[in-house]
Amino acid sequence: MPSVATREDMSTRLEEVLRQRFAFHCDNAEAYGSEFADLWRATADHALGGKLVRPRLLLDIHRALTPDTGDEPDLAAVDIAAHIELLHYAFLLHDDVIDGDLTRRKRPNLIGALAAGIPGATEEDSLHWARSSAILMGDLLLSAAILGFARADVPSHARTRLLDLVEQTILETVAGEHTDVALSHGIIPSDVDTVLAMSVYKTATYSFSLPLRAAALLAGSSVAAEQTLEDVGRRLGLAYQLQDDLLCVFGDHRAHGKDAFSDLREGKETAIIAFARATDAWPQISPRFGAVDLTLHEATAMRDLLRGCGAERFVVGLIGEQLDGVYALLSEAERAGQITSDAARAILVSASRLEGRQV
Amino acid sequence: MPSVATREDMSTRLEEVLRQRFAFHCDNAEAYGSEFADLWRATADHALGGKLVRPRLLLDIHRALTPDTGDEPDLAAVDIAAHIELLHYAFLLHDDVIDGDLTRRKRPNLIGALAAGIPGATEEDSLHWARSSAILMGDLLLSAAILGFARADVPSHARTRLLDLVEQTILETVAGEHTDVALSHGIIPSDVDTVLAMSVYKTATYSFSLPLRAAALLAGSSVAAEQTLEDVGRRLGLAYQLQDDLLCVFGDHRAHGKDAFSDLREGKETAIIAFARATDAWPQISPRFGAVDLTLHEATAMRDLLRGCGAERFVVGLIGEQLDGVYALLSEAERAGQITSDAARAILVSASRLEGRQV
Repeated sequence: MPSVATREDMSTRLEEVLRQRFAFHCDNAEAYGSEFADLWRATADHALGGKLVRPRLLLDIHRALTPDTGDEPDLAAVDIAAHIELLHYAFLLHDDVIDGDLTRRKRPNLIGALAAGIPGATEEDSLHWARSSAILMGDLLLSAAILGFARADVPSHARTRLLDLVEQTILETVAGEHTDVALSHGIIPSDVDTVLAMSVYKTATYSFSLPLRAAALLAGSSVAAEQTLEDVGRRLGLAYQLQDDLLCVFGDHRAHGKDAFSDLREGKETAIIAFARATDAWPQISPRFGAVDLTLHEATAMRDLLRGCGAERFVVGLIGEQLDGVYALLSEAERAGQITSDAARAILVSASRLEGRQV
Repeated sequence: MPSVATREDMSTRLEEVLRQRFAFHCDNAEAYGSEFADLWRATADHALGGKLVRPRLLLDIHRALTPDTGDEPDLAAVDIAAHIELLHYAFLLHDDVIDGDLTRRKRPNLIGALAAGIPGATEEDSLHWARSSAILMGDLLLSAAILGFARADVPSHARTRLLDLVEQTILETVAGEHTDVALSHGIIPSDVDTVLAMSVYKTATYSFSLPLRAAALLAGSSVAAEQTLEDVGRRLGLAYQLQDDLLCVFGDHRAHGKDAFSDLREGKETAIIAFARATDAWPQISPRFGAVDLTLHEATAMRDLLRGCGAERFVVGLIGEQLDGVYALLSEAERAGQITSDAARAILVSASRLEGRQV
């Protein structure tokens, strides 16, 4: 089965490219002092442990869009895929600074690890050191990602499209994060439309639309095909985020491994909450929503109120709408000859691999 | 005097380009909500008030290196100059977040202005909102700057050099800032060599070497000429920073407008302090160094101890060494035909304009 072998080739190649990029940066950093080189090494340790969901999505779809290229991985696609992972990690770092997060999936994140690294310092000093380092490393990885797009070994018209793509992606992701912070401070009111737009911009654009569009662009697809895949990415990304929101509140926490009810304890403005705010159940939910000391008993009662007021059903319905939209978009694109049926199928397969998993 | 007119033309053009860039971003931001558009407008207000020292340096030197181009401003040079100003403002924003600064030149900076903009919020919430916004806006301006370099309307070999230049600049500036944070937490020991290297990387690279190198590159100068100007920029930038350090401690505060003795109150690890640490005077200086409530009387006594231990004389000597180095580099470059005597003179004139002023 040559296609399976090539998929693994590409993943191996991707991991190699990322390891090489970090090794290069770590070596390079030595000239600026051992603390700076240590920061690069710690970053490499944390960043290389990811599941590479976004770059793998790019490579899968790229392969489906260029079925006749044989078993040799396309180097430009692998390179852009690796830089999408660097962009992801840059966003994570600044997001963790903004959210004050010190862990990710129950283990210390880079900030948590750096803060624990100064024996004898006060907590305030340790956190300042760790967060300052994360802001600066985020800047370096953001720069590295954009420079990777700018230096792509592709014809100049494709590079122009790549630069527009990375620019729009960064703008939307930052705008989404800014809206998320504004929602969390109550600076803008939480309603369903605002929360859905925020989710699309903050997550779907860079996690789904970006890899899909980059795959299309690098495979030589038309601008129309790329636009279709942008819409497909938004809808898949939104469906994915809504699924993740549902799991955290209504899911089986032993099965999906997320911190049970963490969104309720953190007061996260999800579509579930935005819907519930407009119902009669909200006065019963609101007093303990966002309480850091929310007990399991209280959380379970809150979950039942959220179910009772129709929020779960509403969000399940939204996911269905997004996926129906994806099927319609892909059928129409296939009919119009924008993409092959193989490519359409590959997108659905990749989407199903993501379902219910933490990206 | 056509050359004077052209210098003003370029400045006018530069201000126009910057205003247009911000106007474009403000318009574009409306699609992502009024809070996000407000952030862009507030950023434009603050960023457009600067003295444009770095872009003007680029344009002056570019003009001196291309004396025969007539009165028409070189559009690629104006464009890159504008993007250097965006890079500067991106660095300022993240620097202000890291340093916890809410003012610049005794007026609220962007963070201070944003924090004051939420009536009724707690101080902690206001600061979190303002700093999160500044991190995100810094990301956008950093991206805009790199994309400006990537899209420069120049031949591809020049664009390759521009990308290498902006990459090295960002790496060194971030490394310098990281060392500065490490010094402020006592994570690395403060000695003269470390502090001087930090100053070169944090300030000289992007404020001096970057505009000089970009000017050379865009004027079609050789790689050798660009390397010479990199060295010249490091030395000028270091001299400038040391002069600024001296002014804060030993200068006439009514004349230069800086907050009197602010470096002593903030515990800033300057070359003055690094020198004094290795002298017998340090035990008398150290107890009140970095005290936020340092009185004018104590600061004056500290200044006299710093003068007495030889720190002022030492730093004055360092400045002389840097400037001697600049003269030697420029003479040698002139002799080797790397740059014209007009260009060498223009660099010295630009340098003298900067002397003793806050960039």
